[in-house]
Amino acid sequence: MVANQLPANAAFCAEFARRLARRPPRLVATCARGSSDHAATYAKYLIETLLGLPVMSAAPSVGSLYAARVDLRDTLFVVLSQSGASPDLVANAHWARRNGAQVLAVVNATDSPLAAAADAVLALRAGPECSVAATKSWIASLSALLQLVAAVAGARALEAALQALPAHLERALALDWDSALPVLAGVEDLLVVGRGYGFALAGEAALKLKETAGLHAEAFSGAELEHGPLALVQEGFPVLVFTQADATLATLRQLIEKLRARGVRVVAAESGPPAPGRLPVVPGMHALTAPIALAQRFYVLAHSIALARGRDPDRPPLLSKVTATR
Amino acid sequence: MVANQLPANAAFCAEFARRLARRPPRLVATCARGSSDHAATYAKYLIETLLGLPVMSAAPSVGSLYAARVDLRDTLFVVLSQSGASPDLVANAHWARRNGAQVLAVVNATDSPLAAAADAVLALRAGPECSVAATKSWIASLSALLQLVAAVAGARALEAALQALPAHLERALALDWDSALPVLAGVEDLLVVGRGYGFALAGEAALKLKETAGLHAEAFSGAELEHGPLALVQEGFPVLVFTQADATLATLRQLIEKLRARGVRVVAAESGPPAPGRLPVVPGMHALTAPIALAQRFYVLAHSIALARGRDPDRPPLLSKVTATR
Repeated sequence: MVANQLPANAAFCAEFARRLARRPPRLVATCARGSSDHAATYAKYLIETLLGLPVMSAAPSVGSLYAARVDLRDTLFVVLSQSGASPDLVANAHWARRNGAQVLAVVNATDSPLAAAADAVLALRAGPECSVAATKSWIASLSALLQLVAAVAGARALEAALQALPAHLERALALDWDSALPVLAGVEDLLVVGRGYGFALAGEAALKLKETAGLHAEAFSGAELEHGPLALVQEGFPVLVFTQADATLATLRQLIEKLRARGVRVVAAESGPPAPGRLPVVPGMHALTAPIALAQRFYVLAHSIALARGRDPDRPPLLSKVTATR
Repeated sequence: MVANQLPANAAFCAEFARRLARRPPRLVATCARGSSDHAATYAKYLIETLLGLPVMSAAPSVGSLYAARVDLRDTLFVVLSQSGASPDLVANAHWARRNGAQVLAVVNATDSPLAAAADAVLALRAGPECSVAATKSWIASLSALLQLVAAVAGARALEAALQALPAHLERALALDWDSALPVLAGVEDLLVVGRGYGFALAGEAALKLKETAGLHAEAFSGAELEHGPLALVQEGFPVLVFTQADATLATLRQLIEKLRARGVRVVAAESGPPAPGRLPVVPGMHALTAPIALAQRFYVLAHSIALARGRDPDRPPLLSKVTATR
């Protein structure tokens, strides 16, 4: 999927990069819900660290319910939605344009109302997303955003990391994460931790475990966990940690040690020799592509957890593909 | 407390309003953790709807760990912290100034390193915060932010609502919320919902229940709940809803009805005649002060829930007053 997406989107990314060079934004806003909002979190860290532009998350109700006038001149307003059909996101795209923004839609369904409301459309090219709990479209969102930002930044190292991504995604599927299943399938509550580029994956993983396995998984940044939620590990909740090799790694390793010293069951995806509670990772990946490979492997784990808990991961209760919130 | 804070901060607010008029920011960024980050969420809705300025939440790791260069010219960077002592927030204040921002510290401890690192200091004047789980300083944060934004906006109706707030906070304490205790004290998991101006309170309430009662409470906006987490109500989790009288109310009432129709136990703070599952509110409050009164009453409820669960709410496990994350 990613192997097809990258060449298909290359021309769009180059053209969009020229467009931003002609009219550089001062601010990027993202607007999304659910899984797509976790992709937006990834975009925030990516854009701030690579392009040096501040990124805000637009709360849909400010546009769609409060109908506020917000100064969005010189703003690139990025709306992310697999289906492109949620009425409140379409309303927010129109609202952002009225308030002066350029709107970029990041969608799988390029014939959707959201795509029609945007100034430019970045296509996910993930094929039809059949599952209610989006998986491949989430991976496609991250790779598409990464390719676009790499093109804008002219970041050669990242472009190389992207070219290697399809092979790395294959290798991720072969990683042995079986040791996680007995820890995570038998509990009702779980904390999921990531930081920096990997924080978005923590949120996405927690949401998927809620949807498909009925597990109350909640995500925190490694630092945020120590501001309150740490009280919960006394309840016996295990902690699932995602790491990537960058400036956040040392802080996450300290946290893992601290938790284990207190008897908390920690399962951590991290590099290093085999060790109890350690889930192997594909070695040598770029810190910005590593979370995408972890997501790929995690989705298989989530599927196993759901089955072990007697759920049908393709039929989450009460949810529908297009959520018609206002 | 609020009755003393408002007159004591009036001159600062007026002066800060003049300062912003001379050099208007294009963007506001907030930077905080834990409880203070929920106060920042309140500030986002407040500033966007009243001042029309976009508000972003700055992820501390972007400054303190990735050391990214982000263009923060024309940005008011608001750092919120009761203690003013968290090293990563102090580092972010310095980082924001180096990147071109004006820094406003919103702190209780005005002799703190964070206050020293800022261009201006909004004092909470909450007195010493003795409990690890901050309560009065959270209420003081909201009223202080509201007074400042009302001064910048020149919003007379809000200034009147603020003057009435001390009396409304007294009345909130007298509200009978006893019916919530049997629903919430016996469960291990809970969803907390708010939207718009009340969304910050949902986050704050969930955090307090984690810290003081060991209850896995998680907050969602009313709309976000339908994008995935709704699957969890099948698990029998009750839902606590905070409402205020504004454009979000109809959507929350629809959600409450939908949940009850599915057999979910919903406890909702909302106006109206006494009804099962309805927690009374102080009538006639402004939509921006109503969540502050709800917070006041909620803290008493959280205390009762903690005691009913055999916890000492003043001694949450593993937490300390100043969290030294990087």
